[in-house]
Amino acid sequence: MLKIGIVGLGTVGSSVVKILQKNKEIIKSRAGVEIVPAIGVARNLEKHKDLGIVLSDNVDDILEDDSIDMVVELIGGVETAYGIVKRALEKGKSVVTANKALLAYHRYELQEIANGQGFGFEASVAGGIPIIKSLREGLSANQILSIKGILNGTCNYMLTKMIEEGVSFSEVLKEAQELGYAEADPTFDVGGFDASHKLLILASIAYGINAKPEDILIEGIEAINEDDIFFAKEFGYNIKLLAIAKKEGNSVELRVHPALIKKEQMIAKVDGVMNGVSVVGDFVGETLYYGAGAGGDATASAVVSDIISIARGETTPMLGFKKLIENELSLVEINDIETEYYVRMSVIDEVGVLSKISSLFAKHKISIDSFLQKSIKSSGKSTLLFSTHKCREKRVRDALSEIGELDFVQEKPTMIRIED
Amino acid sequence: MLKIGIVGLGTVGSSVVKILQKNKEIIKSRAGVEIVPAIGVARNLEKHKDLGIVLSDNVDDILEDDSIDMVVELIGGVETAYGIVKRALEKGKSVVTANKALLAYHRYELQEIANGQGFGFEASVAGGIPIIKSLREGLSANQILSIKGILNGTCNYMLTKMIEEGVSFSEVLKEAQELGYAEADPTFDVGGFDASHKLLILASIAYGINAKPEDILIEGIEAINEDDIFFAKEFGYNIKLLAIAKKEGNSVELRVHPALIKKEQMIAKVDGVMNGVSVVGDFVGETLYYGAGAGGDATASAVVSDIISIARGETTPMLGFKKLIENELSLVEINDIETEYYVRMSVIDEVGVLSKISSLFAKHKISIDSFLQKSIKSSGKSTLLFSTHKCREKRVRDALSEIGELDFVQEKPTMIRIED
Repeated sequence: MLKIGIVGLGTVGSSVVKILQKNKEIIKSRAGVEIVPAIGVARNLEKHKDLGIVLSDNVDDILEDDSIDMVVELIGGVETAYGIVKRALEKGKSVVTANKALLAYHRYELQEIANGQGFGFEASVAGGIPIIKSLREGLSANQILSIKGILNGTCNYMLTKMIEEGVSFSEVLKEAQELGYAEADPTFDVGGFDASHKLLILASIAYGINAKPEDILIEGIEAINEDDIFFAKEFGYNIKLLAIAKKEGNSVELRVHPALIKKEQMIAKVDGVMNGVSVVGDFVGETLYYGAGAGGDATASAVVSDIISIARGETTPMLGFKKLIENELSLVEINDIETEYYVRMSVIDEVGVLSKISSLFAKHKISIDSFLQKSIKSSGKSTLLFSTHKCREKRVRDALSEIGELDFVQEKPTMIRIED
Repeated sequence: MLKIGIVGLGTVGSSVVKILQKNKEIIKSRAGVEIVPAIGVARNLEKHKDLGIVLSDNVDDILEDDSIDMVVELIGGVETAYGIVKRALEKGKSVVTANKALLAYHRYELQEIANGQGFGFEASVAGGIPIIKSLREGLSANQILSIKGILNGTCNYMLTKMIEEGVSFSEVLKEAQELGYAEADPTFDVGGFDASHKLLILASIAYGINAKPEDILIEGIEAINEDDIFFAKEFGYNIKLLAIAKKEGNSVELRVHPALIKKEQMIAKVDGVMNGVSVVGDFVGETLYYGAGAGGDATASAVVSDIISIARGETTPMLGFKKLIENELSLVEINDIETEYYVRMSVIDEVGVLSKISSLFAKHKISIDSFLQKSIKSSGKSTLLFSTHKCREKRVRDALSEIGELDFVQEKPTMIRIED
């Protein structure tokens, strides 16, 4: 018998209890032992009295109880959770968590403290999709050439609505908030921060690289407007918030930003609140993983699968490497990223505008691939939409900064990277 | 150091050696030990002399060598392979195989003989996609409600071509043979047998059910013609060869056949030679896995990932269950399947045809959902295309058998099941 203490009985925590109760028999057959949700810790005990497990509002009732074999941490946040998980490991308990922020900041310390004790965190990335296990076990023969993930359901829901129904960012945000897909303060999701935490976890498993959110490029979807949608449709693109990891030689790129991707790509077909992760390995080629990235039941499915793996006596190294890799990988500087770009700017209609802009692009050695001009006659303004051939990020940033200074340019030009 | 003996050095075997050589360092970091392809057994040694490993044409050089820790079986076929694998296990060696036919017939005996020793077979289903690990580990918290797999790249390539380019079955088969996607005798692929072997393996992991190919419904794609394609397009369907497992109560349906599926479904978007598997769990909802289902490198990626899992000391039960489940599951009889159907028949244009046919449908309590008639004026013939509401398979079979006897019906009516 394996006795579990659950810290945090929100939607995920309650769902973990529900799964362990409803699927008790098949889980016992799969794990080889009975798995018992023995105690749950929450603030408001009254609210959970129908769960059918012992309740407490004191986490010590789990941590100090030697009969509890495993702690499931579902309170979120970084430092308090870190304290609880650390104490649990030091007490010889195994740990399962869904806490991406905890892992984004403390995964290497935790790996060291765990030191081979069971530590599951499948639920921290892409909810119910077993992407951690797939990357760590299923693709372990490969050098991972790239990961492109749609890891935030809120953003994907919003972008899908904007593209399919022409709804504006602010309208769709309001709708997402009403549906419970977006928080009252949506910054963590729409700003790309949530996706960045998940990307860092995947990057550790793929590359053994220890980066923090502060180290990487993170851009959100707030600036995307109807002109961008128009351009995307016109040229056969979809727009997705992508979490990207790429390796070339000893350099690794990690970045989160909206991207234009060709509609025919499998990852471009991941719509609505769903998550998807495309992984390219040097031998396996592209594989893709799709499913619900959030929600109590899907996330709890990942939590309980981790519990079962630990009950089975799992021996896979937490972050995928039994020994540290010797050759040091380095993160690519943001300025050194090379990709194609889509650029939007709003200008006053006057003679010589296009000539001045294109000479600035030329000066920065940026070559234009396609161009669209939308004039709004009555206003005397035009929107100019460009896409470029592959070039260094710094050139584009410099060019846009100079263009932004021109008298006839109405607002700061914006850009979206194009991923092929 | 873990020493591997490889039996069979075809495209997969050579690729296994190549991966272990090229990715040696990262594999060592992930596995915690050096993995050495020590010896390869093949018929034509001359052909493999550049592989950089010891060669032999005698499998005893692997099986009788106590320094070899693991046997990788890549010769295919059932009985010879079974003999080799059994001997290897009895000698205390772990085993990795890509052999779906071996598993389709002998997986439960092999599980018993292995008795907890390492036994990997990820490569036997869907090539490079880690579907076995995903189902067995990543989704282990769930009751599996359904599996729908596109598990045969040859069929998927052919059906994609037929739908996208209007090419006929015989033309596209010829083309697939020229490209090396189809064998000279294509029956094993286009007849659905290959997919059925893979389905049986997945069904064991999902349900612990021990079925053989002879026990289940297997239909191929040979009868699909341009009228079926026309109907599919007209009503927003794609046509895929699906391997289907479904559980309701204690009954499990296992079947392989072409199916009409709505274009919007994620699995319908898996095109060309690619494979895809959609799995629905009671808590996780739908997850989908996509990638290359065949080819030396992709398949070898799965083989080597299994080798690494065993090197890491994997403890997951081979077929997903540590203890047998107590409640007996039973296979649903083919006649008792309930689904929607699409029916095609060719008739002579004369008064009363539709009335007679529809009265036969009514007699068998089959309710029509949609109907299309294509008349070929000069010939005096028509093709009638129906789709039905959900009904029992037996009703449709009986109705079609009676309809087939009618004077004005030109050839045996055919049907394709519709999966929603």
